[in-house]
Amino acid sequence: MRKITREALLHIPRSNYCYGYDENTLHIRLRAKKGEVKSVFLRIGDQYIWDELEGGGGNLGAGGKVWISSCDIKMEKELETEYFDYFIAKYNPPTKRSRYSFIINGIDEKLLYTEKYIIELVNKDDEKKLNDISSFFAYSYLNKIDVLKIPSWVKDTVWYQIFPDRFANGDESINPKDTKPWATPPTNDNFMGGDLQGVIDKLDYLKDLGVTGLYFCPITMGHTNHRYDTIDYMKIDPHLGDKKTLKRLVKEAHKRGMKVMLDAVFNHIGYYSKQWQDVIKNKEKSKYKNWFYIKDIDKVDTPLNKIDSKNIPYETFSCVAEMPKLNTENEEVIEYLLEVGKYFIKEFDIDAWRLDVSNEVDHSFWRQFRKEVKNIKPDVYILGEIWHNSLPWLMGDQFDAVMNYPFADALIKFFCTNEIDEIEFKYRLNDIISNYQMQTIESGFNLLGSHDTTRVLSYCNNNKDKFKLAYLFMFTQLGAPCIYYGDEVGMTGVQTKDCEGQRECMVWDEEKQDKEILTFMKKIISLRKKYSEFKLVNNEWVLAKDNVIIVKKENISIIINNNDFEKTIDLPDYLKDKKVYDLFNEDYINLESKLTLNPYKYLIIKD
Amino acid sequence: MRKITREALLHIPRSNYCYGYDENTLHIRLRAKKGEVKSVFLRIGDQYIWDELEGGGGNLGAGGKVWISSCDIKMEKELETEYFDYFIAKYNPPTKRSRYSFIINGIDEKLLYTEKYIIELVNKDDEKKLNDISSFFAYSYLNKIDVLKIPSWVKDTVWYQIFPDRFANGDESINPKDTKPWATPPTNDNFMGGDLQGVIDKLDYLKDLGVTGLYFCPITMGHTNHRYDTIDYMKIDPHLGDKKTLKRLVKEAHKRGMKVMLDAVFNHIGYYSKQWQDVIKNKEKSKYKNWFYIKDIDKVDTPLNKIDSKNIPYETFSCVAEMPKLNTENEEVIEYLLEVGKYFIKEFDIDAWRLDVSNEVDHSFWRQFRKEVKNIKPDVYILGEIWHNSLPWLMGDQFDAVMNYPFADALIKFFCTNEIDEIEFKYRLNDIISNYQMQTIESGFNLLGSHDTTRVLSYCNNNKDKFKLAYLFMFTQLGAPCIYYGDEVGMTGVQTKDCEGQRECMVWDEEKQDKEILTFMKKIISLRKKYSEFKLVNNEWVLAKDNVIIVKKENISIIINNNDFEKTIDLPDYLKDKKVYDLFNEDYINLESKLTLNPYKYLIIKD
Repeated sequence: MRKITREALLHIPRSNYCYGYDENTLHIRLRAKKGEVKSVFLRIGDQYIWDELEGGGGNLGAGGKVWISSCDIKMEKELETEYFDYFIAKYNPPTKRSRYSFIINGIDEKLLYTEKYIIELVNKDDEKKLNDISSFFAYSYLNKIDVLKIPSWVKDTVWYQIFPDRFANGDESINPKDTKPWATPPTNDNFMGGDLQGVIDKLDYLKDLGVTGLYFCPITMGHTNHRYDTIDYMKIDPHLGDKKTLKRLVKEAHKRGMKVMLDAVFNHIGYYSKQWQDVIKNKEKSKYKNWFYIKDIDKVDTPLNKIDSKNIPYETFSCVAEMPKLNTENEEVIEYLLEVGKYFIKEFDIDAWRLDVSNEVDHSFWRQFRKEVKNIKPDVYILGEIWHNSLPWLMGDQFDAVMNYPFADALIKFFCTNEIDEIEFKYRLNDIISNYQMQTIESGFNLLGSHDTTRVLSYCNNNKDKFKLAYLFMFTQLGAPCIYYGDEVGMTGVQTKDCEGQRECMVWDEEKQDKEILTFMKKIISLRKKYSEFKLVNNEWVLAKDNVIIVKKENISIIINNNDFEKTIDLPDYLKDKKVYDLFNEDYINLESKLTLNPYKYLIIKD
Repeated sequence: MRKITREALLHIPRSNYCYGYDENTLHIRLRAKKGEVKSVFLRIGDQYIWDELEGGGGNLGAGGKVWISSCDIKMEKELETEYFDYFIAKYNPPTKRSRYSFIINGIDEKLLYTEKYIIELVNKDDEKKLNDISSFFAYSYLNKIDVLKIPSWVKDTVWYQIFPDRFANGDESINPKDTKPWATPPTNDNFMGGDLQGVIDKLDYLKDLGVTGLYFCPITMGHTNHRYDTIDYMKIDPHLGDKKTLKRLVKEAHKRGMKVMLDAVFNHIGYYSKQWQDVIKNKEKSKYKNWFYIKDIDKVDTPLNKIDSKNIPYETFSCVAEMPKLNTENEEVIEYLLEVGKYFIKEFDIDAWRLDVSNEVDHSFWRQFRKEVKNIKPDVYILGEIWHNSLPWLMGDQFDAVMNYPFADALIKFFCTNEIDEIEFKYRLNDIISNYQMQTIESGFNLLGSHDTTRVLSYCNNNKDKFKLAYLFMFTQLGAPCIYYGDEVGMTGVQTKDCEGQRECMVWDEEKQDKEILTFMKKIISLRKKYSEFKLVNNEWVLAKDNVIIVKKENISIIINNNDFEKTIDLPDYLKDKKVYDLFNEDYINLESKLTLNPYKYLIIKD
């Protein structure tokens, strides 16, 4: 007898396994060991509605003989990962109230899985067990306010990340001292003079590219070229522009249908901020003393070059003495940072906040942050920087999404560096989906690289074909894709200790731009906008074999040969001998039963 | 080769598997299939502190060659359940920052379990894998404010639940109309005249019993004898007393070292409240219209006896038309209820709120509730009424604990009704512990019954020996125990449709009180207070066989024969031939290698 592995069954209410997808819909998932389960039925109903309303049902169990409000819903197989199959049901509880269990059909046995036990269903009608709802899982009431609701515009966005000092210089009069000529090799401390006017000047370029959202690394006053060491959160860095420039930038972006996202660096402040300088000067007497976590107040004035980075007398970001950590449990700090969060929305009408090092700031602060900023602009997007599993921040009370670095890692390792095969690639992507609520995935923030990583083309060892596959695939996926500035013209850059490698000046010299890549990027952006399947439909993995994949999204199939050699594949039945439409070449093609794919060939077809 | 079942391994950051136990301590748990794992090491360190500080570590992986801040900690086997072994490590992150993974030693293989993968450790030094912290689990920073902190007094409390109409009549002048003579069999709608003065009069009785916390069912103005259908949240029910009486009650309770907990019924209001009556009267024009979830405003004035309970024109608690559900997402409702929550603390100095039907009210409301009430009295205890798994409410932002009905169920089914055996009993208790953070367990609210269930003695079919075992065991466990009024004098009562069965008048007639039980109860209460092991130390299950259990808490062992016949057991080595102290009889006894236990015999000894 082939038994179902009990230990592999998993369901957790109010998590990625059960959540309000919207105010009327519950998504309910079940995890089981791969290949062991033939079908699953979700047994669900209103805990209180029984035939006789005896004793009320609910916590006390049966409220009559027949649980008239219940039904058994066949769950769909949602996806598979390395070890597991996931099943999902989408259910609208008519009264918003539910208790539920799972009836699991294995090959040789049938189980009932509840919150309190797993038992075998032996007789045809184990009525008592099937009605013992006091043991069932509970989603007692689907409260609208608890549902993670993400602004609807996010799904449609094509992001473009800008590192302000390096994108475009539009106003030389505000250049920092010692500004280097554009295209000078970047170092940790040189400035190139990029500014907000430069961005305004290039908005038409970005619009032409197809960008609909601008994500800026910090633009507030900072000490270094990256400006993550904030001097003044309320002041636009004078080398980037002023309030007027930012207002104009946002207005001009909005005019072109582009959203604007700024970087909120609230985990730490900069060494040269007035707050930290006051601590250095006044020590115990500083009114800002409690804004920080100070270990040895007598040593806070140790000169930077004398501080041992492994023994800094105050808490910092990482081991960087220039970035003292803010105490976001302190009421004054909270008030100040919330004011910053609201100020840029109210004053400049920005559309989104990206939250730097958000996993080191307390949940309590982020809950207040969400409440306050959504209160003044309900469709603000809140994006956390977290690289690991982020579900605790994504249940509706804190962020809308996080930077999808696990997604980047999977694509880079499959398409660019070939460190993982097509099976692991599929599992990794499915893992990400299974880890979150679907609205997080649909309005996620996908990327291939950023100011913190090696550039895609460098990961590809300058192989443009590989680069194209990675970007192409990202643009077919759920979640808004982001282009790191310059990737679209073939810029390279390898991650270095201080990240200067990937922060070169944008290449504006048309001679030096890679037009082949630029044309390609415009094309994939336009396809994403034209065919809503990419942003609305999850992957159906039709084929993942020998480094060739076919991913289906309703009538659209994405076929990719990730090999540096030709591959001939047997087409699946739904494509065999069909006339299909090639989205990329905008032409019909006739498929046969086999298809020969050139090295790194991609094909997006509609059947 | 005996492999470790990958599918059974489970760890979830920021859950019952990893949490701040206090501001300096992380508790980290790992779940594995039972019997497969010999030992587990937690590999943990500061993500940023490496030998060379190259690249910073953290998200980007290795920050040098040697992860100098890391250590490998042997995890303790914490407990076992039906399917799993749980391991735990208690770790003080010196910098509050951690990334971690698990090194799992099976019988024939050794695994590394990270957030992103499970791999076999084959070579003696898989250095690279062991330092690939970008794949590790993360507790990036232990923020104090996120830690679930429960008032320290809770652990020490012996609760006593009072159903106000039925406990004691201390002021006949405020009797409800048609008050029945004391000890009249209860019905759904009769009143017995119990009041707050009655409680005051009996405080010395309760103090003598050993009670240190009073938990009251609603005392605010309601329509029925249970008063869960609130008429006015801000008014003490005039049949119970007035503001002065409550103030006196709290003061007198505090004088005797007793805390006071009231019942907050915020999920729904009563039909006869001014708010609902206004809706009935003014319908669309009612200013309270949005306080409720109304399905058909034209029908809200249908007379109660004409309403079909399966088709009520507005949302209610369960299917009870007398209890219209409150819209706790409405700003006015929120403000009003928060005011209520604060008013009773400020005005009457109460110490705790028990939250009725708290699982049907939104998380957002409870977060605000916690913040506001803890703000005015930081050591207020917040206890939710939730019968199913409640972790989503117990992560630090909402409740301190929930009514531990799964605990009650396990004890009732093992000691009283013999529906489960000693093995299932042990697994069920361990399951509860594994489901929560340890501070929730330590300051939990344990009970055997309440106004919503059959009384313990009735579950025992009036067998006092069984009754004693259940109460005795509860008093030896982590979590504050609660006595339902009258249990201590042998009251019985079987759960009925409207719960009247378990809501009889308190037996004050000494002739009718069971003095044997009363003496027993005083004894177990005094033992709990005398020996802090009960409230501070988790169970070590020394024996669970043939319906006999031995549970050890440091030097104290609780030995119970749950059989109705004599049993002779082999004592474990640490007790064999030892002279031990019998806590109950306050005398030394000499143990041999075997011990013969009378039917239902209990023995609490200190070795």
